[in-house]
Amino acid sequence: MTTTVITNIGNLVTNDPDRGTGPLGQIQDAAVVVDDATGTVAWVGPAAEAPAADAAHDAEGRAAIPGFVDSHSHLVFAGDRTQEFNARMEGRSYEAGGIRTTVRATRAATDEELEANLVRHLDEALRQGTTTFETKSGYGLTTEDEARALRIASAHTDEVTYLGAHIVSPDYAEDPAAYVDLVTGEMLDACAPYARWVDVFCENGAFDGDQARAILTAGQAKGLMARVHANQLTYGPGVQLAVELDAASADHCTHLTDEDVAALASGNTVATLLPGAEFSTRAQWPDARRLLDAGVTVALSTDCNPGSSYTSSMPFCLALAVRDMRMTPDEALWSATAGGAQALRRTDVGRLAPGARADLALLDAPSHVHLAYRPGVPLVSRVWRRGRAVRGRRLG
Amino acid sequence: MTTTVITNIGNLVTNDPDRGTGPLGQIQDAAVVVDDATGTVAWVGPAAEAPAADAAHDAEGRAAIPGFVDSHSHLVFAGDRTQEFNARMEGRSYEAGGIRTTVRATRAATDEELEANLVRHLDEALRQGTTTFETKSGYGLTTEDEARALRIASAHTDEVTYLGAHIVSPDYAEDPAAYVDLVTGEMLDACAPYARWVDVFCENGAFDGDQARAILTAGQAKGLMARVHANQLTYGPGVQLAVELDAASADHCTHLTDEDVAALASGNTVATLLPGAEFSTRAQWPDARRLLDAGVTVALSTDCNPGSSYTSSMPFCLALAVRDMRMTPDEALWSATAGGAQALRRTDVGRLAPGARADLALLDAPSHVHLAYRPGVPLVSRVWRRGRAVRGRRLG
Ligand SMILES: [Zn+2]
Ligand SMILES: [Zn+2]
Repeated sequence: MTTTVITNIGNLVTNDPDRGTGPLGQIQDAAVVVDDATGTVAWVGPAAEAPAADAAHDAEGRAAIPGFVDSHSHLVFAGDRTQEFNARMEGRSYEAGGIRTTVRATRAATDEELEANLVRHLDEALRQGTTTFETKSGYGLTTEDEARALRIASAHTDEVTYLGAHIVSPDYAEDPAAYVDLVTGEMLDACAPYARWVDVFCENGAFDGDQARAILTAGQAKGLMARVHANQLTYGPGVQLAVELDAASADHCTHLTDEDVAALASGNTVATLLPGAEFSTRAQWPDARRLLDAGVTVALSTDCNPGSSYTSSMPFCLALAVRDMRMTPDEALWSATAGGAQALRRTDVGRLAPGARADLALLDAPSHVHLAYRPGVPLVSRVWRRGRAVRGRRLG
Repeated sequence: MTTTVITNIGNLVTNDPDRGTGPLGQIQDAAVVVDDATGTVAWVGPAAEAPAADAAHDAEGRAAIPGFVDSHSHLVFAGDRTQEFNARMEGRSYEAGGIRTTVRATRAATDEELEANLVRHLDEALRQGTTTFETKSGYGLTTEDEARALRIASAHTDEVTYLGAHIVSPDYAEDPAAYVDLVTGEMLDACAPYARWVDVFCENGAFDGDQARAILTAGQAKGLMARVHANQLTYGPGVQLAVELDAASADHCTHLTDEDVAALASGNTVATLLPGAEFSTRAQWPDARRLLDAGVTVALSTDCNPGSSYTSSMPFCLALAVRDMRMTPDEALWSATAGGAQALRRTDVGRLAPGARADLALLDAPSHVHLAYRPGVPLVSRVWRRGRAVRGRRLG
């Protein structure tokens, strides 16, 4: 096999406690050897002990981390909601269509427009170190438009989520039950071939607990795995339903009872926190500390979407998690990498160990702590995805 | 003269209300013509009316803004305070030397080390759209080390500030009055040739109102102009002293009485707000809305330093200003450009009009509002400084 060594890494996070020190499995003066043919990690360890390789990249002492795993985004959309954002920030009321505005624009867009917009956002995330992306439908809300969104997404990522149950389609405003029938019937049949996951927005004004259960179990019967938008705006049944149905993740988790926390701690469902949404809507922060102290597995993700959280930056979310959700920099880094992988039930990403995907980011910094210590600064200087260096733009 | 046209700018902020619409003087489908020899703006207006030029750059519909004017940073330093940051974020007490830690490291560094560190941070800021930088001494606190810092800084920016009065030097802990004598005497004599500004940290634990007055007036007598670190941690005399001495700027302004606000509104002193500091220390946000509503001129800046605000990102500070300080996206953009210029008493930067410096940033976005709407995302795609395109790094 031909190999490439990335060497002279000042501080490497492996997320493999058996291989390095501390919970992040850190190695000083490290090297990673990539199997070029498979794009996987062939060897990880101290640079001085690295086996010979066919090519080399000198990290010049920079820190390296596993590529970010962004397990929650909504990137098959068209249009822009700048005016709605402006109004919200100024405290003005605004005849806001909210999600409906984006549904209208998305339905009106061509396939090519939707794909170009998706690719632009995925490239933007990749340049910021995100090497695994989940993304969802949910701005089509017809059988044809939902299937179209998932077909487009599935050409660009393996982690595709059917979210026909984002809101009740405006076309069914008078008959939500008929919309649930559609989402669990014809629309599901058309969408399931393109998706790995089924999701539902379980919230006042969207879908209640019974509807959410019907939607998730129908998806599971078609071979999809469950994930849930749960307890974002209010207390509700979403989190406990997620655990009961063995969903991979309950996402948002902003309003939690003690019973919700206990359920998460007892099950296999990750709590995925999305601080970009609270930042952009000036909402209450999820209490990451409470979850971590209860033994819950926590992931961090962007929720990138044009309405409530239009950031694609995992470093930004990590800085918020440390500042406002009382995660330590180490916990936040783990949650943005290994935590995201667990929220996608993946073991081949989010860590750097032999056999894992060679997904990593170099940082213009001596350690990953600088992602929180230097908020807003684009520190990601180089990214490899499946062992291949990502081509970026030159400034100037 | 030879000229270069930057054309097909979807939305241009000129900060010249006579030239475009609204307080930001915006022009749709705009062009900027640069005089290559002087690096100044030769013409600004609708692209369809642009005069012929010798070279052209197609902005492909991107938005453009004047380069950011970062009027407050502390970048002549050595070392890193990652451990102190970690401890603060975890709520652990830490045997924190604070500024003293950086003073020790800075004194121990060679000229070459200090210069390389400064240049690295200035380049980082430039790639994020900052085309005018102020920076300060204040980590030397001996005559020799302060003069050295200013000499190094003056090779890289015109906006150099003498801050021998950052804290009382640990060498004078028993005799602060003797340190004020040094700062206003021998140290000032050695430093004034390299500096444009004199500054003082007027705060409990640093310098009181009488000491601050002595330091600022001594600097003014040597031809330096005044700026003041005022009212950051507590109420105090700093803001009113700044207005009384016609300082260009009172910086921080977190704790203000009604009298402080009235003084700022009546004078020529800009209130420079530094939200990176409040972010990184979990402190109370300055009330920008109160200042703006009282008619005070507000600037935004990073306060970039390795202790309390280690961000060089003006877009990040702008997003915080909108989210947490209740500035509108338009106000925040103005404060980060024209406001910074006013805080440095400059009229040749912070705006794009004939004769001004050709300092501008292109954004991967349809308008400047995306700087707040898309927090953390590195949207600056190309930067010109004095008419020259900035060479950046290619990712990958
Ligand atoms: Zn979502
Ligand atoms: Zn300062």
